[in-house]
Amino acid sequence: MYEGVVQDLIDELGRLPGVGPKSAQRIAFHILQSDPVDVRRLAHALTEVKEKVRFCAICGNVAQDEHCRVCQDPRRDIAVICVVEEPKDVVAIERTREFRGRYHVLGGAISPIEGVGPEDLRIRELLARLADGAVTELILATDPNLEGEATATYLARMVKPMGLKVTRLASGLPVGGDLEYADEVTLGRAFEGRRLLDV
Amino acid sequence: MYEGVVQDLIDELGRLPGVGPKSAQRIAFHILQSDPVDVRRLAHALTEVKEKVRFCAICGNVAQDEHCRVCQDPRRDIAVICVVEEPKDVVAIERTREFRGRYHVLGGAISPIEGVGPEDLRIRELLARLADGAVTELILATDPNLEGEATATYLARMVKPMGLKVTRLASGLPVGGDLEYADEVTLGRAFEGRRLLDV
Repeated sequence: MYEGVVQDLIDELGRLPGVGPKSAQRIAFHILQSDPVDVRRLAHALTEVKEKVRFCAICGNVAQDEHCRVCQDPRRDIAVICVVEEPKDVVAIERTREFRGRYHVLGGAISPIEGVGPEDLRIRELLARLADGAVTELILATDPNLEGEATATYLARMVKPMGLKVTRLASGLPVGGDLEYADEVTLGRAFEGRRLLDV
Repeated sequence: MYEGVVQDLIDELGRLPGVGPKSAQRIAFHILQSDPVDVRRLAHALTEVKEKVRFCAICGNVAQDEHCRVCQDPRRDIAVICVVEEPKDVVAIERTREFRGRYHVLGGAISPIEGVGPEDLRIRELLARLADGAVTELILATDPNLEGEATATYLARMVKPMGLKVTRLASGLPVGGDLEYADEVTLGRAFEGRRLLDV
């Protein structure tokens, strides 16, 4: 439909997640009208990320060196490992400033429907990290959905013989949320996990 | 939040229209996990478009040569010019295969709120194209909204002394649409423009 290179760009943009044909077209025309310097910067950021980013040899998080920033930080508590599905979960948890241990990024969750089994996740690497007994608590922070729960249960059973403390993040009402809009499972979990108010 | 180059990419992606911080993050992680060849192709498409695409010297449409494909085509009727706001409107009209004339891309519509006046649009170039009297009909296909209507009225008044036929695309119910969901202005226009059924 468009002149060759414009159509090429629309096609390439349309392959990105969450970018439909209309957005791809809108972005392409935005690019056409933007400053060449900005476009070169975007193109450069794309290739840089492929060239420079690797995955941390310890935890599997994104890293620019052999180890990620968390694993490099000597102030982090090596006795606690928080297991997450993806690097973006690390960022979400870091934002809370609540956790001072280290992470282990699985690279997904067990999902028979999508053909992801335990052998496709970085579980062997996790067990190797637990082998020397330095870790005393494992926080299973996989997503609170079917796949995440299955993965957490699988891991909990697998590490049980090691005798370490295994925890799971609390489920409940989101802070600032509205009780009436909470789904029944979340509301049920919030009841189960109710805390005694100390007043 | 992220390691340098990942954050750079998220920032650059977040500048694109319709890409919020969450989508930028999702796209960045998609890029991280994609084949380097695909990423290089996207980066290349971005720079190519800036290097190779220019705007047609006649109509202002996107072009890879001095003139766009429509203006280069000797079979197109030079007596009819269809005036549109953006190159994507050309593509939308081309898709209908209804129009065999040429285009004139204004590069926007008159919008006092956004500070776009007639002098910011390619109106001088349009008047120059009409000067030799070869054009007999001007179809004003600017958007059927406030700015598009204002631009069409402005152009119609401006070319009135030239005595050519000036038309505007019909407003009415979208084909395949549902009468009950049509807004009242569209429905009103559909009544105004009602046609005699020849049965």
